[in-house]
Amino acid sequence: MLKPKPHNLEPAAGNGLLHRRLFLTGSLGGLSLLRAVPLSAQQHVPEWMKAPGGPLRPYGERSPHESNVQRIVGPMPGTTGSGSSRTPLEFLEGMITPNSLHFERNHSGVPDIPPAQHRLAIHGLVRRPLTFDLEALTRYPLISRMHFIECSGNSTALYASQPPQGGAGVLHGLLSCAEWTGVPLGTLLDEVGVRPEGKWLLAEGADAAAMSRSIPMEKALDDVMIAMYQNGERLRPENGYPMRLVVPGWEGNTNVKWLRRLKVTAEPVMTKDETSKYTDLLPDGTAQQFTFPMGVKSVITSPSGGLKMQGAGLYQISGLAWSSAGRIRRVEVSADGGKTWAPAALSAPVLPKALTRFRIAWQWNGRPAVLMSRATDETGIVQPARDALLGKRGGAYRYHYHAIQSWAVAATGEVRNVYV
Amino acid sequence: MLKPKPHNLEPAAGNGLLHRRLFLTGSLGGLSLLRAVPLSAQQHVPEWMKAPGGPLRPYGERSPHESNVQRIVGPMPGTTGSGSSRTPLEFLEGMITPNSLHFERNHSGVPDIPPAQHRLAIHGLVRRPLTFDLEALTRYPLISRMHFIECSGNSTALYASQPPQGGAGVLHGLLSCAEWTGVPLGTLLDEVGVRPEGKWLLAEGADAAAMSRSIPMEKALDDVMIAMYQNGERLRPENGYPMRLVVPGWEGNTNVKWLRRLKVTAEPVMTKDETSKYTDLLPDGTAQQFTFPMGVKSVITSPSGGLKMQGAGLYQISGLAWSSAGRIRRVEVSADGGKTWAPAALSAPVLPKALTRFRIAWQWNGRPAVLMSRATDETGIVQPARDALLGKRGGAYRYHYHAIQSWAVAATGEVRNVYV
Repeated sequence: MLKPKPHNLEPAAGNGLLHRRLFLTGSLGGLSLLRAVPLSAQQHVPEWMKAPGGPLRPYGERSPHESNVQRIVGPMPGTTGSGSSRTPLEFLEGMITPNSLHFERNHSGVPDIPPAQHRLAIHGLVRRPLTFDLEALTRYPLISRMHFIECSGNSTALYASQPPQGGAGVLHGLLSCAEWTGVPLGTLLDEVGVRPEGKWLLAEGADAAAMSRSIPMEKALDDVMIAMYQNGERLRPENGYPMRLVVPGWEGNTNVKWLRRLKVTAEPVMTKDETSKYTDLLPDGTAQQFTFPMGVKSVITSPSGGLKMQGAGLYQISGLAWSSAGRIRRVEVSADGGKTWAPAALSAPVLPKALTRFRIAWQWNGRPAVLMSRATDETGIVQPARDALLGKRGGAYRYHYHAIQSWAVAATGEVRNVYV
Repeated sequence: MLKPKPHNLEPAAGNGLLHRRLFLTGSLGGLSLLRAVPLSAQQHVPEWMKAPGGPLRPYGERSPHESNVQRIVGPMPGTTGSGSSRTPLEFLEGMITPNSLHFERNHSGVPDIPPAQHRLAIHGLVRRPLTFDLEALTRYPLISRMHFIECSGNSTALYASQPPQGGAGVLHGLLSCAEWTGVPLGTLLDEVGVRPEGKWLLAEGADAAAMSRSIPMEKALDDVMIAMYQNGERLRPENGYPMRLVVPGWEGNTNVKWLRRLKVTAEPVMTKDETSKYTDLLPDGTAQQFTFPMGVKSVITSPSGGLKMQGAGLYQISGLAWSSAGRIRRVEVSADGGKTWAPAALSAPVLPKALTRFRIAWQWNGRPAVLMSRATDETGIVQPARDALLGKRGGAYRYHYHAIQSWAVAATGEVRNVYV
């Protein structure tokens, strides 16, 4: 080694977790993975270097060798376009979700909207009701923000009494993160002039379900935007083309897609989408409504359910953390089922209400182990254990699951979901 | 208006530039674009709300209504895959370039590489030469960083004595920005053990051109990575699938794609790609080699060449700024051909060696105007005027153009490239 840095070997918690410094120095510091093969002779020249390669393309596509990386499509029975498709989190890295793999949750399929014919109306308790076309909207001052969107029903299978089996995508993949660009909603509310009695907004989509939610004026004026771009290009059809609400940190269904109408009201409208669903059932049989923010949460995406470890040795543990309350302050990882914890490295930029990538190195000894991650956000709120979450909520809750995820690694290298 | 904030009308420079506060408050503060149309009656229900929409899809595609947004493909005569395709900057927003629109610059087409057969060899002045396959590389600690890549030949048409006409993409589109995830090169150099006399690296691609550049060891150990992911998913074929160098801030061709070999050497190797091209010709006929860093630069992408303004009124001016020296500290905009300047709003996150989106509001009076942007990086270096750049370089320079771009807006609303 050129510069041995043996301090990078320092253990940080039980059962092989190493100091996060390994991710900050860009040096193995004396460690070796020994996964590389000694170079014995000159490399042979591969076939693909012997003739010119493929053409330049106006709009690129991924390698055909990656076609196994797909959203996990789950339509409701009897439909093709309603239901959800999940982001395959275990195959992705970094914080950005590429547009083709951003999760979908549709209530009556994906409408095909000719953008020049689309209108957004803002009306109700306003001084001058207005309609905006796409061309008009792009004339307003734009802002760009990186934000996660998570379906309130994400991870709901984990409420079951027996741990469901599946990959990180199957269990937690109603979750994605993109750079959204659009007009602050406050700007448009200035244009229409909200009357003093206007305290809520009804947001309605132009899909066949007319998906609609009520949103308090305070949030609307805080950080809500009408997004027209996603990771640089126009929104994808399944993400609301040509315009959608982005309601940072709040449950996905409030981020109304194909947005066609905002009605300023004095009270919430009690739409079907906030009465028949997206409410939280309490033990006494009553339902809580308007439980908008998504709680502080994290999940290890690698290794995770369905993946197979290739024998003892050095691995990286990689995952995602997020919170509606702002930035992630800390993610701790345990390799001994929660007995000891070590802080993971957080990959910059750590942004408010965005996914944060965390990583830690793990020297696996080849014996059974249980991996867990626990996020803390900048307000100091700590991701709860599953027992604590369920104890508070009772058995009828179906939304807003955000407990600690545990993955059991078997001596064979197989990884599965467990409750500890 | 709910809360008039007339201070947002405050002019910040001549000819209609407004204070950037407009972008920070999310309120028009009494301004009105009057581009919206009064809502006279109930909206009619559009056709696409009358039947269920399209299906959930495993890998999404963009709306067919956006198919006009394409890379600008320019193959070298007699080839299909060599040359470049440019990012259509004028149609994008934010800082991230979506993978399908990331620019390409290929020297012998795009190789189709089966990832399991690809190997990276590290050899030369090392203690133990090694080869790594993709599976081995993903076991190492990964890092994620958002970085721009710019071809050293970007904007070269602007060296011409008469201003070439074209959009921001045609003139400056050999420029993109992505979140890259990979292994720090320093980690792998630790594995092979660089000998003390190893001061340079030869990096060679697995394309038919065997594109290859020499890179100083100091940069290799600073912030170079071997990237395997681009905006969350695996690299695209035209961006080096399955692995490439990312050399933050340095000219694009050093970010060697389809990376197959790193040879540690005592001196630069003087490959064809650093002798016959990618050198800077000086007035005395000699050539400067290894002029790696891309200078501080900015360009207004909207409005820009080929776009047409729709009459007097409020517009946003939006553009990109970047520097190899680190973060962008300031971008100033002029609407009067450089007589007066106003600071633009920089969209967070402002990251080192990444594109930074800037915006400012402009009340256009409908008369001819010249728009310019001028970036300053965190080291205090200011983007030069064209005359100053050419004065220093003489007439033979072909690379590293980074002078201030001027767009002339005619009374008709037409926008074209001018020298001022």
